[in-house]
Amino acid sequence: MDEFSRISYWTSNQQDEKLLKRNAVKVAIGDDAAIVAGAVSEDGSSKDFELLYTVDTMVEDIHFTSTTMTYAQIGYKALASNLSDIAAMGGVPLHALIAISVPGHVSAQQAKQLYDGIYECANTFGVAIVGGDTTSSPHNLVVTITVVGQVEAGTAILRSGAKFRDMLVITGVAGKSAAGLHLLMHPELEQEISPELSAQLKRAHQLPKPHLAQARLLRESGVCHSLNDVSDGLASEAGEIALASKVDVIIEETKLPISDSLSRYAALSHCSALDWMLYGGEDYILIGTIASQHYKELKRSFQQLGMQLYEIGYVEAGTGEVWLEGSSWQSQHGQSPKTQRKRIERKGYNHFT
Amino acid sequence: MDEFSRISYWTSNQQDEKLLKRNAVKVAIGDDAAIVAGAVSEDGSSKDFELLYTVDTMVEDIHFTSTTMTYAQIGYKALASNLSDIAAMGGVPLHALIAISVPGHVSAQQAKQLYDGIYECANTFGVAIVGGDTTSSPHNLVVTITVVGQVEAGTAILRSGAKFRDMLVITGVAGKSAAGLHLLMHPELEQEISPELSAQLKRAHQLPKPHLAQARLLRESGVCHSLNDVSDGLASEAGEIALASKVDVIIEETKLPISDSLSRYAALSHCSALDWMLYGGEDYILIGTIASQHYKELKRSFQQLGMQLYEIGYVEAGTGEVWLEGSSWQSQHGQSPKTQRKRIERKGYNHFT
Repeated sequence: MDEFSRISYWTSNQQDEKLLKRNAVKVAIGDDAAIVAGAVSEDGSSKDFELLYTVDTMVEDIHFTSTTMTYAQIGYKALASNLSDIAAMGGVPLHALIAISVPGHVSAQQAKQLYDGIYECANTFGVAIVGGDTTSSPHNLVVTITVVGQVEAGTAILRSGAKFRDMLVITGVAGKSAAGLHLLMHPELEQEISPELSAQLKRAHQLPKPHLAQARLLRESGVCHSLNDVSDGLASEAGEIALASKVDVIIEETKLPISDSLSRYAALSHCSALDWMLYGGEDYILIGTIASQHYKELKRSFQQLGMQLYEIGYVEAGTGEVWLEGSSWQSQHGQSPKTQRKRIERKGYNHFT
Repeated sequence: MDEFSRISYWTSNQQDEKLLKRNAVKVAIGDDAAIVAGAVSEDGSSKDFELLYTVDTMVEDIHFTSTTMTYAQIGYKALASNLSDIAAMGGVPLHALIAISVPGHVSAQQAKQLYDGIYECANTFGVAIVGGDTTSSPHNLVVTITVVGQVEAGTAILRSGAKFRDMLVITGVAGKSAAGLHLLMHPELEQEISPELSAQLKRAHQLPKPHLAQARLLRESGVCHSLNDVSDGLASEAGEIALASKVDVIIEETKLPISDSLSRYAALSHCSALDWMLYGGEDYILIGTIASQHYKELKRSFQQLGMQLYEIGYVEAGTGEVWLEGSSWQSQHGQSPKTQRKRIERKGYNHFT
């Protein structure tokens, strides 16, 4: 059983629909965040807003090691990944609760650095830390963060809204976090690249920025039909949109944006930049689908604010598959570029495989 | 550094007051739950309500072992302890998010039982499970639950409201959970007691009930000035009220309610029922202070609903100390009962000592 089947096995048919309705639940388990009718403010009306809830756990030796991340970076990234889930709904994060289980090998000073990293991220994105729980742990450091956000009622962007003929877009370059992790695990390659390139790739892995401003722009545009954040690689995230929307999603390989740093480091390390993009994850950029006629206008709005939007594919009628349409591997078989595509696995970072 | 000092070291002066105010935070870190101006409903006004947030982590071999608790009980109790924090604010719990980190030795079926226990508690108390995160864990099972609740604006009961001459009350018998744990760890004593007594004590440890109805009654009465739930023993919880309210709290030993089951098992096992009451914890009853002239009337309201309220002491001017005023140890020294008291440690279940 993979992670998705397990969660379904554990949570299906456990609660009465009436209980969920009575507690104003609009969307429960299954998207980036839950949606609840309600509002945070001292004198607003709760009919104008909805609350967004999300939780993420990072476990030492599963999601991070203290050899590739400082404690401050672990803290920063733990909160950033949660804020990214709020971004993936088009919302604004407001509050966070921090639960940490601290093993004996982590000193009070290191735990302080972890908190400093969490607060750096919180203060950068205007999020109030309102509570938490601290326990000891027999072996591994475990950091669980819950974030509550808000969105204008009825405007949260789900995974399930992708439409036939939508354009597939992303808000940044994918794969850099995976390249950064590779570099951190192969320090001998460090001397073969410039300090700037090294710093850029490592920063992508250690201090990813949640795309909250990009998310707001997509939501306000009114033309973004589905949205997900890239925590598990483009293949997995596009697959979640395809499955939830009951469509097929086609990624056009030639359109995938690749940075100089990524292609140079991939060549040097004899790795596939495409694999990092499709299966690497932890980039925390956004992937979504938009009404294609609005792409140029939307891209201009992004550029005016110093942000990027890239077309990387399109949506077809289908049954939840993701296809890679490419050129680099077409020539090997001498087939027509127009019809050449291959189905790609919805694999990504699955904690149970 | 104890747990309290560490949390302060990690979280003090990390955020601007303006940021907290902008995000409608009324009470952040330091009470049973955080308070935020806002409301959950489809058409309410957020000025009438406040949101309550709380999070609690349970770690295998720290908070529980799979030899003294079934997986269903672990799940039930993990949620119950969170609901108890909402009760300790006088609120109503609405939503929960479940983060679990599952080690290899826990089977998919055992994880399902854990979830069944969580849902049993959720459905009993009308709480909607709206999201979660599931990861693997290298060693220990870790369960972190976040609960969001609601309370009428301005009426949440804090630890800091105890007043000079208040009466100290509790809503149930303390110490039974500790006695139950003792029995679970000494199965050889089982044959010396009745099956009913055994079941009662074990249930107190394994399936504690959060006192949500009692909390609502205390809040609605308008005469409850401070409130805490007993997760760490009466001494520690009374100490938190004393410290937060800048008063001294006096527990009168002769007034502490003790059940037949507790006194019988304490005698049999040669343990101190008083120690279990003061330092045992995990009873999830409530301890608070009320305007003493309303005690009789309030006790009657409790009894009419089949619930208990016990006077166990009083509040004096002071500096945050807890005193035990007693009789059993007075006779040993031949001193006058009227002036005899001893200061008791604010010890309880502290995860770092």
